[in-house]
Amino acid sequence: MKSPPETPLLDTVGIPADLKRLSEDALPQLADELRAELIDVVSRTGGHLGAGLGVVELTVALHYVFDTPDDRLIWDVGHQAYPHKIITGRRDRIRTLRQEGGLYGFTKRSESEYDPFGTAHSSTSISAGLGMAVAHELAGEKRNVIAVIGDGAMSAGMAYEAMNNAGALDARLIVILNDNDMSIAPPQGAMSAYLARLASGRAYQGVRDFGKKLTSYLGEGVDRAITRAVEHARGYVTGGTLFEEMGFFHIGPIDGHNLKHLIPVLKNVRDNGTGPVLIHVVTKKGKGYPPAEAAADKYHGVNKFDVITGAQAKAPANSPSYTKVFAQSLIQEAREDDRIVTVTAAMPSGTGLDLFEQEFPERTFDVGIAEQHAVTFAAGLATEGLRPFAAIYSTFLQRAYDQVVHDVALQNLPVRFAIDRAGFVGADGATHCGAFDITYLASLPNFVVMAAADEAELRHMVRTAVEHDHGPIAFRYPRGNGIGVEMPERGEVLELGKGRIMREGSKVALLSLGGRLEDCMKAADELDAAGLSTTVADARFAKPLDTEMIRRLAQEHEVLITIEEGSIGGFGSHVLNFLAHEGLLESGVKVRPMAMPDRFIGHAKPERMVEDAGLDAPAIVRTVFAALGQQAESAARA
Amino acid sequence: MKSPPETPLLDTVGIPADLKRLSEDALPQLADELRAELIDVVSRTGGHLGAGLGVVELTVALHYVFDTPDDRLIWDVGHQAYPHKIITGRRDRIRTLRQEGGLYGFTKRSESEYDPFGTAHSSTSISAGLGMAVAHELAGEKRNVIAVIGDGAMSAGMAYEAMNNAGALDARLIVILNDNDMSIAPPQGAMSAYLARLASGRAYQGVRDFGKKLTSYLGEGVDRAITRAVEHARGYVTGGTLFEEMGFFHIGPIDGHNLKHLIPVLKNVRDNGTGPVLIHVVTKKGKGYPPAEAAADKYHGVNKFDVITGAQAKAPANSPSYTKVFAQSLIQEAREDDRIVTVTAAMPSGTGLDLFEQEFPERTFDVGIAEQHAVTFAAGLATEGLRPFAAIYSTFLQRAYDQVVHDVALQNLPVRFAIDRAGFVGADGATHCGAFDITYLASLPNFVVMAAADEAELRHMVRTAVEHDHGPIAFRYPRGNGIGVEMPERGEVLELGKGRIMREGSKVALLSLGGRLEDCMKAADELDAAGLSTTVADARFAKPLDTEMIRRLAQEHEVLITIEEGSIGGFGSHVLNFLAHEGLLESGVKVRPMAMPDRFIGHAKPERMVEDAGLDAPAIVRTVFAALGQQAESAARA
Ligand SMILES: [Mg+2]
Ligand SMILES: [Mg+2]
Repeated sequence: MKSPPETPLLDTVGIPADLKRLSEDALPQLADELRAELIDVVSRTGGHLGAGLGVVELTVALHYVFDTPDDRLIWDVGHQAYPHKIITGRRDRIRTLRQEGGLYGFTKRSESEYDPFGTAHSSTSISAGLGMAVAHELAGEKRNVIAVIGDGAMSAGMAYEAMNNAGALDARLIVILNDNDMSIAPPQGAMSAYLARLASGRAYQGVRDFGKKLTSYLGEGVDRAITRAVEHARGYVTGGTLFEEMGFFHIGPIDGHNLKHLIPVLKNVRDNGTGPVLIHVVTKKGKGYPPAEAAADKYHGVNKFDVITGAQAKAPANSPSYTKVFAQSLIQEAREDDRIVTVTAAMPSGTGLDLFEQEFPERTFDVGIAEQHAVTFAAGLATEGLRPFAAIYSTFLQRAYDQVVHDVALQNLPVRFAIDRAGFVGADGATHCGAFDITYLASLPNFVVMAAADEAELRHMVRTAVEHDHGPIAFRYPRGNGIGVEMPERGEVLELGKGRIMREGSKVALLSLGGRLEDCMKAADELDAAGLSTTVADARFAKPLDTEMIRRLAQEHEVLITIEEGSIGGFGSHVLNFLAHEGLLESGVKVRPMAMPDRFIGHAKPERMVEDAGLDAPAIVRTVFAALGQQAESAARA
Repeated sequence: MKSPPETPLLDTVGIPADLKRLSEDALPQLADELRAELIDVVSRTGGHLGAGLGVVELTVALHYVFDTPDDRLIWDVGHQAYPHKIITGRRDRIRTLRQEGGLYGFTKRSESEYDPFGTAHSSTSISAGLGMAVAHELAGEKRNVIAVIGDGAMSAGMAYEAMNNAGALDARLIVILNDNDMSIAPPQGAMSAYLARLASGRAYQGVRDFGKKLTSYLGEGVDRAITRAVEHARGYVTGGTLFEEMGFFHIGPIDGHNLKHLIPVLKNVRDNGTGPVLIHVVTKKGKGYPPAEAAADKYHGVNKFDVITGAQAKAPANSPSYTKVFAQSLIQEAREDDRIVTVTAAMPSGTGLDLFEQEFPERTFDVGIAEQHAVTFAAGLATEGLRPFAAIYSTFLQRAYDQVVHDVALQNLPVRFAIDRAGFVGADGATHCGAFDITYLASLPNFVVMAAADEAELRHMVRTAVEHDHGPIAFRYPRGNGIGVEMPERGEVLELGKGRIMREGSKVALLSLGGRLEDCMKAADELDAAGLSTTVADARFAKPLDTEMIRRLAQEHEVLITIEEGSIGGFGSHVLNFLAHEGLLESGVKVRPMAMPDRFIGHAKPERMVEDAGLDAPAIVRTVFAALGQQAESAARA
């Protein structure tokens, strides 16, 4: 394989209009070249590979048949949209994917008119598409709206809500169910079993019946190629499928890698379809790249890799990842305590619960992409005396916010929340940023909210959460590797609402919550060197606050900085509120709460995002100097 | 009708154990007495009537057949649980329903061991029940878990997520689908149409096939009464129903008012069922009380009423409700601007959008109980240049938090959020309290967040939102009636981030956001009278802040109070953050942010909840005096 590959036909296709000039016969070659290009791109940039490989033909077919961007094409989640990006005017930048200043790893409205809706979190496409379709109807415009959604994303309630509404509204909406039987983890839930039954041909009706039904939907002028396409796959699904009961016309399953089948189906739907239609397309994740086909889960998200061997570059890891520390610590505790059970929403390996599951399969519950259910399910487990850990990324826990408030906090149930990917997450960018959890959790009565400053702290917090039966408790930790501290044999139970002093000074106090502690230590070195004796404290708890420590920091220092990798309204706000009510602000102490700025931060390496946000060591030094009315000369040197 | 009615049999039933001593033949009389008692209770307390009337027989049957509280019975939403409360040891307090210190209007764990899970927000019961069922399996206990869920609640994605997971886990879970074809509004969505088809008998299989299937599920020892029960209703649903595809065994529809049918079905499932089962029960909302049967929507939630005539007491309303002001203002704007469209999640009358719909049916979308979809659907509408208003109560918008973050704020789409029931809501209590919206919205980049201090302000904010096309904008307003200010002919476009000074003073500044302004004015009178010259300002905007005004308030006063009817992390925190970064706290100004306390406030009249929270005029006065180090003598007199 050459790198970059030779792609004579693809080189003629800058945008979909170029594609439309090709004859249908040329499309398979185009798809091959697009696939080769995709493999080469991702081998250099890293990112999502398997999903994109699975939709190469579908991407070509959709842009060939539909009139994008006037027709609206929405890729659910968007991690399968790299081929789409290549043929929608972004090929010149495609090797900047997921790099700072480069293309985003998901679809993004500000990036291209061919991205009518930004995606990243799962299962939004049908709702957004329905909104568009309804708007077109109100405007009297005839456009097509196509939402491409994976089988895994179909387990989310939001997709169901949208299907339920679309079926009732009878809007002109095309849903393409991309059934590759593998989202990130093997799919969970009855729906995926149902799709498997459909795809296996256990529920087909005869050719004649399907023909009749098709004619009733598409009219007498229907192209017979559509029946050949479905016939080829395995037959026809029976009337009365779940999707038909939901008000959709249902076509499929059809072979998503066969352009001769895809194109006539799409054309017929385009020209003759009216109400909502679901086209069930079966694809293979990783299609066309043997290493990815063989191990679809390993090629979901990849590092840079060698195209010939498929070997992925490994980032040098001197310290264990926080994810792994969480999993190992919890496994250790679970050996002592059989009340510990775990819940994940389709992220067993991302959260480390795959390791837990190896040892405790009966005590691990993967509920699918279904965060709302995950949290209330955990609440149900807690009512029966179990000690459930719901391990959900900060950004995804947003989807279960009401369940956290209404089912957990209000009832004061001891659900443990292990919040991975808190703070900046790097290449996945703003859509995945763990910005808001401190704010939305610490404002809830009954909650205990902790943040781990390093991997040893995380181990303590796991143990602390195990032992906390009085109500809900959450602990957040960053993406990536620990900082290399010595690990305790086993975690200790931390005293609730007690922080720790890391170094003592007299003029400046840096009060850190979570992963910013290391930069506080660096900043303190510099401040000390500049003659500003600096105390550094790790709050450990956003709630309850260590009021005794905070009082002392405020009373005994001229400057008090709070810092957290989170939005406004979180830890710093709680500290300010406390200080205000205690009258501790009136002594003249210069308090500066450092938090994420009031804008979304673009994707880049995490350390660059921290810098961009003004939360790194030089920024801390600058803030201290500014508070003291001095030029931050030393900061400028840093 | 006597009041209270004579209920000789019911008088013998304090708890379900008493019920079990009755013969089956006595149950219809018990149900009649329970119904009479319920009508009498609600005629005195107000509250939810129709839903409870519909499940009288079901309540009796469930407690007769199952072994509560060892078996777990969960009432989804919980507003239909008054009959359940009456026969589970709470009859002596039933006439305190929804009164301060009295029984809660929904189920509540702390109220009774017969309430294993607190409900209020819709569609949580299956998730919670599944958690319990799994816990029982892990513990090796054989208990029954029964979740009773209405057809309306089935439109929520959360219910689907739970069904999907339950079907896959094959847990011992009994879901009773209480199909009364009417949640609060007429049901929306394809699912409800599907249920109607099921109930209408258009999709039944023969008796023989059903018998076979039943035997395969319940074993050969199955009581033949179960087939009689289903036979009586209309026949048998076909194999391959949507629920069966989801992994549930599906029985029904059966007549939910016929104890002779309910009891054998429940007994058979209890004794012989194994995996998840869904029993489709058809009931009539308002059953047995003619006025409620005739107008189910009007008797969903009622004021006190006359049992004989059904006439409901009307609260004297001198001022229009905020809900109505919102609706009328938006209707007025929509006459000028056909880009205005509205979205509600199954609350057309609660939000006032029923009025909007009367004039603009094509521009009103009721998506069902589906807040997640509602918000992203609105985002889709916004991408096409429409001006969507998503009208959702503060407490329910929590369920769409991720969609607000990810689909609206991140993409900076101009979705307008009309947030009704912001702050304390009275009898609906803590589960419905609009506490968190300022915190969870004002922390989001791109958002504009307003709060209306009175009904004229609300009108201005509606207009302001209409004209704001640059990004998302929200405005919150309280439950209940306005304060009687003069209404402008039409709203004006407010300048973004500009508050208003209501009265000028020199020593104390009260900075209010939203509905607490009136109490600030009262407090200012008292403070002035005590010699403390007081400025009162209405911030109007939680975001962006009126930094110029806040700076002036901080610089020119000795005390600065912020006040809002919301949690910590909101407006007051934003003000403190601003003051801290500007160095404005170091002058010695005494800042006191007043917000809801760190606990959930029990149901009571709204003004009592405000008092309990320490947010009324006397509390403001006390806070000012405390800040000044003085005894709040005048406050004590207030
Ligand atoms: Mg998949
Ligand atoms: Mg209903």
